[in-house]
Amino acid sequence: MKDIAVIGAGAVGSFYGARIARAGYRVRFLMRRDYEAVKRNGLKIESIWGDFHLKAEVCQTPQEIGPADLVICSLKTTSLEDARPLLAPVVGPRTKILALMNGLGVEERLAQWFDPRQILGGLAFTCINRLEPGHIRHLDYGHVLISHMLADMTATEQVADVFRKGGIQAATTNSLKAARWQKLCWNIPYNTLSITAGGVTTDQIMNDPGLLRMVELLMAEVMTAAAADGAPLPDDLPARMMGNTRKMKPYKTSMTIDYQARLPLELEYILGEPIRRADAGGVPVPYMKAQYWLAAFLDKLNRGLTPAPNDPACCAGAA
Amino acid sequence: MKDIAVIGAGAVGSFYGARIARAGYRVRFLMRRDYEAVKRNGLKIESIWGDFHLKAEVCQTPQEIGPADLVICSLKTTSLEDARPLLAPVVGPRTKILALMNGLGVEERLAQWFDPRQILGGLAFTCINRLEPGHIRHLDYGHVLISHMLADMTATEQVADVFRKGGIQAATTNSLKAARWQKLCWNIPYNTLSITAGGVTTDQIMNDPGLLRMVELLMAEVMTAAAADGAPLPDDLPARMMGNTRKMKPYKTSMTIDYQARLPLELEYILGEPIRRADAGGVPVPYMKAQYWLAAFLDKLNRGLTPAPNDPACCAGAA
Repeated sequence: MKDIAVIGAGAVGSFYGARIARAGYRVRFLMRRDYEAVKRNGLKIESIWGDFHLKAEVCQTPQEIGPADLVICSLKTTSLEDARPLLAPVVGPRTKILALMNGLGVEERLAQWFDPRQILGGLAFTCINRLEPGHIRHLDYGHVLISHMLADMTATEQVADVFRKGGIQAATTNSLKAARWQKLCWNIPYNTLSITAGGVTTDQIMNDPGLLRMVELLMAEVMTAAAADGAPLPDDLPARMMGNTRKMKPYKTSMTIDYQARLPLELEYILGEPIRRADAGGVPVPYMKAQYWLAAFLDKLNRGLTPAPNDPACCAGAA
Repeated sequence: MKDIAVIGAGAVGSFYGARIARAGYRVRFLMRRDYEAVKRNGLKIESIWGDFHLKAEVCQTPQEIGPADLVICSLKTTSLEDARPLLAPVVGPRTKILALMNGLGVEERLAQWFDPRQILGGLAFTCINRLEPGHIRHLDYGHVLISHMLADMTATEQVADVFRKGGIQAATTNSLKAARWQKLCWNIPYNTLSITAGGVTTDQIMNDPGLLRMVELLMAEVMTAAAADGAPLPDDLPARMMGNTRKMKPYKTSMTIDYQARLPLELEYILGEPIRRADAGGVPVPYMKAQYWLAAFLDKLNRGLTPAPNDPACCAGAA
């Protein structure tokens, strides 16, 4: 693996791509919004692992890149439906595609367009911001977990090695599904509560007894839904995740970042698909559903897709 | 019954008190905030039933009023804990106390201070605003339902007659509990969703498929909780309530009015007590609980009782 393409060079794609490029790989970044800035100034990475600057190779179309050995797809899941024409030109018969994205069902969607033998999933455990075009700040953590859709461990290790060469701790697993559910055990409560509880941070969620109870109940639902989906998770996972979150600095979740930027929320892959699998498995997930319906509505309201509350007749007695 | 005291002369208390006073009863209104304005200008009632002006008899302390024949207690339930010293001076051995308030458990709380034989509950089905001190606007509906805590139908009819003399349609029932649960079947979904879905109006709730599904599920929980609490409701109640709400003009709920005024929300009597009864009856009410925990947190955030979200490290990859 020598030629790497990064499709979806937001904070996560830019950071990992830059680390890998610095290790000697040829990494080309597909950029749209940030193309001019990065072409001119390169990527400025401020990182707890050490700052560096990369004269990044940027392209405006995937055709300029052409088939790569590895494609790191770090698009938002909200853009996944539009991803096929972005990915097709960089995917050849021997290309591996790594979906470095959140949520459940991403690889399954890619497998409707590409050969599942070429598809891997990756989870990034990290806190990274894009401050301005080409300026990335890496704040905490950074390890990744890599897995192949059909448990091809040779391909898994090959891709993990690219990250390791880039100085990134990369674990591998033969159960992509369990890995995705495991990350959802954090993302479902904290991301969605940060929206429905008014933009709050992880520490505020942990410090409120009612919201903490919702975290516990949402995690319990994830555990039973994962098991019903054929991916039982370790019993002590919720307790460990809550313990780690308590020790973390206060964080604003990625969903709240999107919300504040009035971007669409990654609800379908983070909640919609898990709920569909729970329904298919006959597992009741009322807290997940409440979070889904409320957050989906708030998302629409936030982006002006449903009329904002006007000021109609009031109802002091409640009809 | 000749002497009436209105304790808690907000929109609802002022409106009904004024109608009853106009019919010839001596009605004295306990006013605090609005005392000076109403003393000077009286009560100006703008109503779909006809506008009128009342030179209202206002008092600043309940001691000035003294024991009345009927006390209409129309405080917010959020003030109920402070109500005892307001009520005690107007309650004599033959006084009837009508709790014209929303929620469940109000009469039970009053019965810890006063003789349950003196306690009635009332439900106001109406849309009334207080525009400014002493200026009330009655927009829609207006009928009341009266019931006695121990099903004393003589007392119930006696109190209902006071309202009827005031030109108010007053029904009576021997099951106060069923009446309260029945109104909760509307208040729980619409009031609490208006908070957790960002201040939306009844029409917006009805027009969003996800929020409408939450209305259905919340109403279904109210039905089973009410039955477990010994007050089974008619099977067709949810369908009727949703049908009526669809036909209503868009309304802002009383809880949203309070929220926008940064007043405490009536969550304990509208959701907290129903949840406790469901728990006692072994009935799962996850949607009610989610709504309770989220709305209670938003209420605290709204009133500055928990720190507002600051702007901490962001978390694009989600830890």
